[in-house]
Amino acid sequence: MRPPALRRCREARGNRRQGSSPGGSGAEADLHLRQKTLRLPKSGHLLPTCNGEITTMSFLQDVVDILLQYVVKSFDRSTKVIDFHYPNELLQEYNWELADQPQTLEEILLNCRTTLKYAIKTGHPRYFNQLSTGLDMVGLAADWLTSAANTNMFTYEIAPVFVLLEYVTLRKMREMVGWPGGCGDGIFSPDPPENLGLHHTRHLSVYQEPRTKSHFSVKKGAAALGIGTDSVILIRCDERGKMIPSDLERRIVEAKQKGFVPFLVSATAGTTVYGAFDPLIAIADICKKYKIWMHVDGAWGGGLLMSRKHKWKLNGIERANSVTWNPHKMMGVPLQCSALLVREEGLMQSCNQMHASYLFQQDKHYDLSYDTGDKALQCGRHVDVFKLWLMWRAKGTTGFEAQIDKCLELAEYLYNKIKNREGYEMVFDGKHTNVCFWYIPPSLRGMEDSEERTSRLMKPLGDKVNFFRMVISNPAATHQDIDFLIDEIERLGQDL
Amino acid sequence: MRPPALRRCREARGNRRQGSSPGGSGAEADLHLRQKTLRLPKSGHLLPTCNGEITTMSFLQDVVDILLQYVVKSFDRSTKVIDFHYPNELLQEYNWELADQPQTLEEILLNCRTTLKYAIKTGHPRYFNQLSTGLDMVGLAADWLTSAANTNMFTYEIAPVFVLLEYVTLRKMREMVGWPGGCGDGIFSPDPPENLGLHHTRHLSVYQEPRTKSHFSVKKGAAALGIGTDSVILIRCDERGKMIPSDLERRIVEAKQKGFVPFLVSATAGTTVYGAFDPLIAIADICKKYKIWMHVDGAWGGGLLMSRKHKWKLNGIERANSVTWNPHKMMGVPLQCSALLVREEGLMQSCNQMHASYLFQQDKHYDLSYDTGDKALQCGRHVDVFKLWLMWRAKGTTGFEAQIDKCLELAEYLYNKIKNREGYEMVFDGKHTNVCFWYIPPSLRGMEDSEERTSRLMKPLGDKVNFFRMVISNPAATHQDIDFLIDEIERLGQDL
Repeated sequence: MRPPALRRCREARGNRRQGSSPGGSGAEADLHLRQKTLRLPKSGHLLPTCNGEITTMSFLQDVVDILLQYVVKSFDRSTKVIDFHYPNELLQEYNWELADQPQTLEEILLNCRTTLKYAIKTGHPRYFNQLSTGLDMVGLAADWLTSAANTNMFTYEIAPVFVLLEYVTLRKMREMVGWPGGCGDGIFSPDPPENLGLHHTRHLSVYQEPRTKSHFSVKKGAAALGIGTDSVILIRCDERGKMIPSDLERRIVEAKQKGFVPFLVSATAGTTVYGAFDPLIAIADICKKYKIWMHVDGAWGGGLLMSRKHKWKLNGIERANSVTWNPHKMMGVPLQCSALLVREEGLMQSCNQMHASYLFQQDKHYDLSYDTGDKALQCGRHVDVFKLWLMWRAKGTTGFEAQIDKCLELAEYLYNKIKNREGYEMVFDGKHTNVCFWYIPPSLRGMEDSEERTSRLMKPLGDKVNFFRMVISNPAATHQDIDFLIDEIERLGQDL
Repeated sequence: MRPPALRRCREARGNRRQGSSPGGSGAEADLHLRQKTLRLPKSGHLLPTCNGEITTMSFLQDVVDILLQYVVKSFDRSTKVIDFHYPNELLQEYNWELADQPQTLEEILLNCRTTLKYAIKTGHPRYFNQLSTGLDMVGLAADWLTSAANTNMFTYEIAPVFVLLEYVTLRKMREMVGWPGGCGDGIFSPDPPENLGLHHTRHLSVYQEPRTKSHFSVKKGAAALGIGTDSVILIRCDERGKMIPSDLERRIVEAKQKGFVPFLVSATAGTTVYGAFDPLIAIADICKKYKIWMHVDGAWGGGLLMSRKHKWKLNGIERANSVTWNPHKMMGVPLQCSALLVREEGLMQSCNQMHASYLFQQDKHYDLSYDTGDKALQCGRHVDVFKLWLMWRAKGTTGFEAQIDKCLELAEYLYNKIKNREGYEMVFDGKHTNVCFWYIPPSLRGMEDSEERTSRLMKPLGDKVNFFRMVISNPAATHQDIDFLIDEIERLGQDL
């Protein structure tokens, strides 16, 4: 049953809408103005101010109306993905400054509208730019609930349900990774997962020279953790971007001969650019042989674990000591939702706890294993799990599977469409989660590989000139959107 | 103007509500059931599914109705702050498991209701337990908008407005700190701010033995960054928890004589338990004399910079090299909203950038200083700034000032009320942001300081037995709530 405050609010809103009908007389317009002022004064009239219920409900409902319009518009192909303006233009065109005096709530609503007008529509079916795209409706609902609950993940008593849902969800994810009974440890944390991975490793091993490759966060992590970027050794990859196990072994042996102690291999299951999956079984064999911690960065590709058709790409992940998996990427959970999974139970607590007894008191009357605060590197921790949990309930594992299969099927459709098409060159052959290609404008076709050709194809990335990297993680995308993309490239590239 | 999809949705909702009126005939009930099924099937019928607008709007509006009821109830003193159940009880009483098959949207709504039923009401006027309390309505609206925009802070082109607002807000915060023209650098990041502080320092100085004190995150940071907890030296504090500058200087000299290189002093402006403010001017003098980086952890007390009456407690902060300030604490911004401010412009970029050219391309057509991704330790970054920015617009600096002054006034009211009251002992004299006290049950009053007395007063914290620490950051709290608190302590403690 709706509480009286809500009913009153609905009535107030009904009255307002009558009052604001266009074409009214002067007196009516005046009444409307007074009602408006009464209805939406300044934020000082919102809850927790006494009798602030009606103003609050009315204000929040207005915000929600703006958001719902935005959401519906986001999925409308006739709107632009972004109404792009240069930073300086936007800074000059509006007053964004923070002042001493408050604005009215009407102005706050206007701020919301303006912000959304220039925001990028991340749910738009043609928003392809990032690994995180799309806007899931249940995920959005869950995030709204998380905001309303506004709590912190560090103890059970202040996050009673959320801590349990994190427990249930992490166990399920570890099951999908293939660890028996879902045993192990883990955490949802926006910290750079490689940092966390490296951090937990270090407590186990003497180290000098980790063996790793590829994603820049490994170097960043090594720098932050005091290991030093010079201690990060890049392993050679084949032409599709997959780590070459024989090179890994060679470098390990070489390092040991120099007296270094290799302690971590960070394999990647779905690289950012090529979408390459390292050969995890071969890497696991090497890690076992030399007693090295095996970390799998499945930030991008982890989602494939939900697909019976595609999860073979991660075969061997069950032998990893730790796994990064970001459901905010391929699974389309709202940002952020990053998990670090660790095979050894109790490890995170023993690495990170600082026994801050004033925060994590031991004389409580419930099972303290649910106080997760001392497991994390950070102190406060946002509730990131609820979005994933609620989406998983709403879709089921099979729903996530269908979503991911569809994205990969679209990537394949794109690959097949352009691989023999005039004007296109593939960066590598074969199907991946990522489709990487060049479009060669008509004027450059047939031209020899020369400096002029290279400079006209834009700046280089490593030894290659810039290319298109298409990833499809947006559940809103269809075959027609892929066709549209190709048409646009050709339309815009025609005269280059 | 409302788009057609929204109008249709409203109509659909209207019909449904008629259909669901109680006491209908069998045929009516049947109709209702069919409408319900039509209206809220499974999540596969939501956007981006074709024609999913009506189902989506209806579902999201239902979620919002649940949230609005929860929000209004949160501020109702006749409700409990928490309906506490033990973890195992909650796990057993409901099915929280993740299954292969999807649930219906009706079940998803039920999941939302159940989660909120057992959640703690962080907005409740009598929720005092944490440094982060309260629920700000504009902050909530801003967080909902952030969820709907669902983007990532790493480049301007995917967070066009939010990056600008972060720029504007950080500059304003640096102005409040007292750095001329608001110059410098900074970032909103949920990473442990001390980690970040330590991390940025390390690039500037040879180190061996930092001089620091107090908050456990400093030790955690030192451990994570490879400095080692043994390199963290705690400086003596006076009986109110303030760092003693002469002890700081003595330890620096001692360390230098041993050949160590002290490189960081982490002063605290508002300690977690006592709410002590270190003497920043004296510490700044010492840091200057020995050329040591001065970091101020104003996570808790930073908010006082908004108050003309109280900001003197942070005098000297303008001489710090870096400052942590968490607006999600004293300023009541929804979790998380943590800022690290750095006086030297360009420092963060030069410390952290790894030139991940595939993410942060340099051949763009706008001012690249707005691509902040490479400044941060982490890769993806949630939009945390919008909540603070919108609240600041809505309240003005004066509104934040009034809110903070009121909280401190309530702390003073509490202090005055109990300092000479029978049954209470203050942990220290004098007014602070935090009020720390013991309640001595009647049976223990007058008892000598003995082992029996100590054990009956619960477990020790350092050299002191557990005490009450009251912090008031909840804008919903009033004098009556403080009176209620005292009454409850006495009612419950009467028979101990």
